[in-house]
Amino acid sequence: MQPDFKYTPLTSNHVKQLQAICPQPGQVLSEPADCLPYGCDNSRQYALPEAVVLVQTHEEVVALVEFCRAHHLAITPRGRGTNTTGAAVPIHGGVVVSLEKMDKILELNTVNRTVHAQAGVSNQAIQDYCAPHQLFWPPDPSSAAYCTLGGNLACNAAGPRAVKYGTTRDSVLRLKAVAGTGETLMSGALTSKSVAGLDLTRLLIGSEGTLAIITEAVLQLRTVPSAKQTLQLCYRSVQSALAAVCDIMKQPETPCTLEFFDDTCVELLRQHTQLDIDKQVNAMLIVEADGSALAVRHAIEAIQSASANPGWCSTQHAIEPSDVECLWSARKMLSPLLRNFKPCKINEDIVVPISELVNLVQGIKTIGERRSLSIVNFGHAGNGNLHVNILYHPPQEEQAQQALSEIFSLSLKLNGSVSGEHGIGLSKREVLARELDSNALAIMQALTKVFDPDAILNRGKALP
Amino acid sequence: MQPDFKYTPLTSNHVKQLQAICPQPGQVLSEPADCLPYGCDNSRQYALPEAVVLVQTHEEVVALVEFCRAHHLAITPRGRGTNTTGAAVPIHGGVVVSLEKMDKILELNTVNRTVHAQAGVSNQAIQDYCAPHQLFWPPDPSSAAYCTLGGNLACNAAGPRAVKYGTTRDSVLRLKAVAGTGETLMSGALTSKSVAGLDLTRLLIGSEGTLAIITEAVLQLRTVPSAKQTLQLCYRSVQSALAAVCDIMKQPETPCTLEFFDDTCVELLRQHTQLDIDKQVNAMLIVEADGSALAVRHAIEAIQSASANPGWCSTQHAIEPSDVECLWSARKMLSPLLRNFKPCKINEDIVVPISELVNLVQGIKTIGERRSLSIVNFGHAGNGNLHVNILYHPPQEEQAQQALSEIFSLSLKLNGSVSGEHGIGLSKREVLARELDSNALAIMQALTKVFDPDAILNRGKALP
Repeated sequence: MQPDFKYTPLTSNHVKQLQAICPQPGQVLSEPADCLPYGCDNSRQYALPEAVVLVQTHEEVVALVEFCRAHHLAITPRGRGTNTTGAAVPIHGGVVVSLEKMDKILELNTVNRTVHAQAGVSNQAIQDYCAPHQLFWPPDPSSAAYCTLGGNLACNAAGPRAVKYGTTRDSVLRLKAVAGTGETLMSGALTSKSVAGLDLTRLLIGSEGTLAIITEAVLQLRTVPSAKQTLQLCYRSVQSALAAVCDIMKQPETPCTLEFFDDTCVELLRQHTQLDIDKQVNAMLIVEADGSALAVRHAIEAIQSASANPGWCSTQHAIEPSDVECLWSARKMLSPLLRNFKPCKINEDIVVPISELVNLVQGIKTIGERRSLSIVNFGHAGNGNLHVNILYHPPQEEQAQQALSEIFSLSLKLNGSVSGEHGIGLSKREVLARELDSNALAIMQALTKVFDPDAILNRGKALP
Repeated sequence: MQPDFKYTPLTSNHVKQLQAICPQPGQVLSEPADCLPYGCDNSRQYALPEAVVLVQTHEEVVALVEFCRAHHLAITPRGRGTNTTGAAVPIHGGVVVSLEKMDKILELNTVNRTVHAQAGVSNQAIQDYCAPHQLFWPPDPSSAAYCTLGGNLACNAAGPRAVKYGTTRDSVLRLKAVAGTGETLMSGALTSKSVAGLDLTRLLIGSEGTLAIITEAVLQLRTVPSAKQTLQLCYRSVQSALAAVCDIMKQPETPCTLEFFDDTCVELLRQHTQLDIDKQVNAMLIVEADGSALAVRHAIEAIQSASANPGWCSTQHAIEPSDVECLWSARKMLSPLLRNFKPCKINEDIVVPISELVNLVQGIKTIGERRSLSIVNFGHAGNGNLHVNILYHPPQEEQAQQALSEIFSLSLKLNGSVSGEHGIGLSKREVLARELDSNALAIMQALTKVFDPDAILNRGKALP
């Protein structure tokens, strides 16, 4: 299916020309020891780039893409490499284009609730810049402190609050980008509504740098609600917790986060954190509502009323900021705790319609039992988005991979998708082929050629 | 710029073959008298189709497109023809494919808040079907009672509540469509989050039938809030009303509608409706907040507090449903009232960032004065989306067209867009060229070729 991409090996002459394009000291790295940190991301995959260019301006990106196109050099765009799918791994060697130095916030407009920033700025820097104006940008991946805007755009990043505020794709007005032709594209409009031409903005978002290198974006911000309240809801069984998820999402007060933890998570949290969790509890939800104080009061009542089914045990209100902090730091401890549980871990990201969550978790349990694997589930239940963790000892590698494949099939059978928020990268290309309609896939491949006719931009990623 | 599209003239043999594809009585119309109603839409443009096919199934659409492609016959897809830009006018003759008989709602899922429907169902029928479950679909164009889902998707329709709930593009999960190749495409996923391949869903939305004929869609619904409150805010000047729009949109309680009326509108409403409007009032806002009763109470207080500037005169609470009805029926009367004002009317739809609304309205006033034209503005101010009405006598036609062109230029100068919600169709193709970046436009044209390589789908629309 996938054509072999062949690129020109980088010569010292190419490096000199790259230095002419980006002449500041340290902008072009070509020593393997210097290039090394740019060969991996937060997946377990690795490939050494032949050069790394730390671009500082949009014009440098244009010149660089034109140069790489003329010489048929492979390009891998890169933010901070926090993604988990290998999307930033330079599998063809070639040139890694790092946007990390393009980290300026260009303009904040508090009336239009927009911020204009370069792609290399971190998600957290955007939030910090906007916070004094009671504004925020919805995407909140767990890597927010470090990951870049460009990476968020490339992967359509999300996070817990997507249940109320949507994903990256829902909060971007305009992109400035350089296509594989070297041409500059301005997409979208600076208005909250526009029907003017085809929607290139959302086509670029989630395309993992295979269509164009995004250099700047104008983001649609939201106002920070004046109040927020956090609940810890405990259930006797996974089934009753997931039934509560459906009931919470059926009523009008959409929570701003709705996180689920299965029985193994609960056990780990009970043993290793300060959370007070009764013995009879086998599943847990963290639910938050935000808005004005009055609105939150009503929303919390509505959510509590919807969440009380026969399997419900208790509800704890995290009133003090320290209680809330404690809950979320427990959530963040789960990943490291799981690593201690068994030496190997596969961390997956699947999504189903919320009505199918209970079937998904039950089906995963059956798969785990059949293959003698511990599989632990938690995640953004309000979006039907589960992080599935397969834990195993090295000899079980094949069993684990087979279980993973079965979990993807199950997700698809339940009308789900193979990635809720982590993207496709290298890791999920083949499994994506099981999800996509073949005609739609052929169209996507043809669209990629329109943007990048010489196949120099991050090829071998994002699509099967 | 635009290549001449040449198509095969329709023969009686073609008509017989169309009848073989769609064999039910009345499915294929070829008599000019029968075709006549399918030649126009709500623009002033008209062209007689050579045949009209009232498709009943997705498979018929596939067979029809394959047939038209093989014989190089032009296709114009059509819902109910309510659009105002000529997008549904069959300028090449050929075959109009009417989706009006594909009007079934296939499935409602109240847990996932989704509805699956055929493209020919009316917007109102969707709302009526969902209402007993306290669900609604956000797009609310003024033609909702009659316009189809397919038309809403093709034009990325919106309406007053877009200020809080977004446009069509923000509330669709999956599309089933037939590309210009005759191939069936399934886009998107049935989940509220997914990063799986390129975003074909949003690319098709707003493409005005130039990429594919949409036959079915899965829509993301919202829950009906339990309470809503409506305010009529009156101001001494247009400037102070528009300053209030900015102040309302800066605070956290986003209204679900925020409509603006300029001095001429106010005068017309004063003379021709039951609204009680004081003499000193020269501009008006209708603002609505929805949510739980408690949330609405707080939101209305916050909006009132934000809206009270030195130019503010009065606030009336529309408490009784009849008061609310009265306000909105006054709003709906504006268009017919304007028609009585002068014999000719150009009704436009432009959008700017809300911070620029005051400059837009001031600039339009200057243009009107310079060209001795009455120009009346009202619209969805919370999105910066104005409906600009140029009123004139027939000898002023040239002046009116020049003013229109200047208004588009002004909108673009103020970082706006030439269409907020009506789309491009035939009417705005040339002016769109002023808005779009030329590289982005070239990409859009190339993308169109990917979906419709033989240029049979509604060519000459949507793009310059």
